[in-house]
Amino acid sequence: MQATVELQVIPLGTGVSVRQEVKRVVALLNEYDFILQTHASGTNIEGDLSDILSAIEKIHATLHDEGGVRLLSYVKIETRSDKIPTLEGKKL
Amino acid sequence: MQATVELQVIPLGTGVSVRQEVKRVVALLNEYDFILQTHASGTNIEGDLSDILSAIEKIHATLHDEGGVRLLSYVKIETRSDKIPTLEGKKL
Amino acid sequence: MQATVELQVIPLGTGVSVRQEVKRVVALLNEYDFILQTHASGTNIEGDLSDILSAIEKIHATLHDEGGVRLLSYVKIETRSDKIPTLEGKKL
Amino acid sequence: MQATVELQVIPLGTGVSVRQEVKRVVALLNEYDFILQTHASGTNIEGDLSDILSAIEKIHATLHDEGGVRLLSYVKIETRSDKIPTLEGKKL
Repeated sequence: MQATVELQVIPLGTGVSVRQEVKRVVALLNEYDFILQTHASGTNIEGDLSDILSAIEKIHATLHDEGGVRLLSYVKIETRSDKIPTLEGKKL
Repeated sequence: MQATVELQVIPLGTGVSVRQEVKRVVALLNEYDFILQTHASGTNIEGDLSDILSAIEKIHATLHDEGGVRLLSYVKIETRSDKIPTLEGKKL
Repeated sequence: MQATVELQVIPLGTGVSVRQEVKRVVALLNEYDFILQTHASGTNIEGDLSDILSAIEKIHATLHDEGGVRLLSYVKIETRSDKIPTLEGKKL
Repeated sequence: MQATVELQVIPLGTGVSVRQEVKRVVALLNEYDFILQTHASGTNIEGDLSDILSAIEKIHATLHDEGGVRLLSYVKIETRSDKIPTLEGKKL
């Protein structure tokens, strides 16, 4: 099932700046065959929903392995049955 | 990896009331071995992250199979490595 | 305009635990004439939308005054014109 | 207090497509002196927090006046005291 997703990952306890973690999240997403659009409040992702959810799980596991103590993800998921959801199709 | 998650599923195009779909979401979550706390803005879930993400995918697939045309999910995911995250532990 | 709102405030840079800040947020909300329901992923609020948005602004200002460097709020707002939205009315 | 905000407004009960309402939201935001970046999951806003919250209230009021029955807004708010938050500054 194809989906468009917005993902924002927030690490707690690593200080005021979270830039390194955000860059790591985008690098991990880039290992998949997704269309990605990074913006000021997260990264928009187009791809297979199952793959995207696997990627989110892998991101949490990886950031914990690399020292992250507490991780929050804010995720918006959209699927539809009348047509294939795309990031391009959501442009105004 | 254990997680606490908030899930709110919004169906578009089914009218102003979304109560039937919300009840269906909770029924589908109840098929899993999760701790659930339903509230006015979603359902809080405690369980294995992989299982919770599978449940979210199954919810989208099932609601589409049952006629839902467009589905939005708003998800907050929390994991931590210093202790097991629980809904009980997040009480003030 | 009456509204139901979910508010979750996340301070960055204060360490892994954010319990003190969350308690402060709820204390500040209690200064208003709102109906409040605190849960594991935020606080549900019923009240006048203008008052609730004022409260959110005051919370950011107060937490910064008290030393918070970076604050993120995640807010869900619901209003409707066919009836008065209430937290009670959103029970399943 | 300067802020960066993400706003996504979802009308319920108007059908599967919400494009007209989303365009209306962006038009209303354009009446303010904000920096705006529209993307697939909402609009990022840079401006005075008080003005942004006023705009959100006005958007709900206007969309209801124009026939919207039920409106959900998903809002991420960020403020910081160590520097002025900007959309530009959040680029990776």
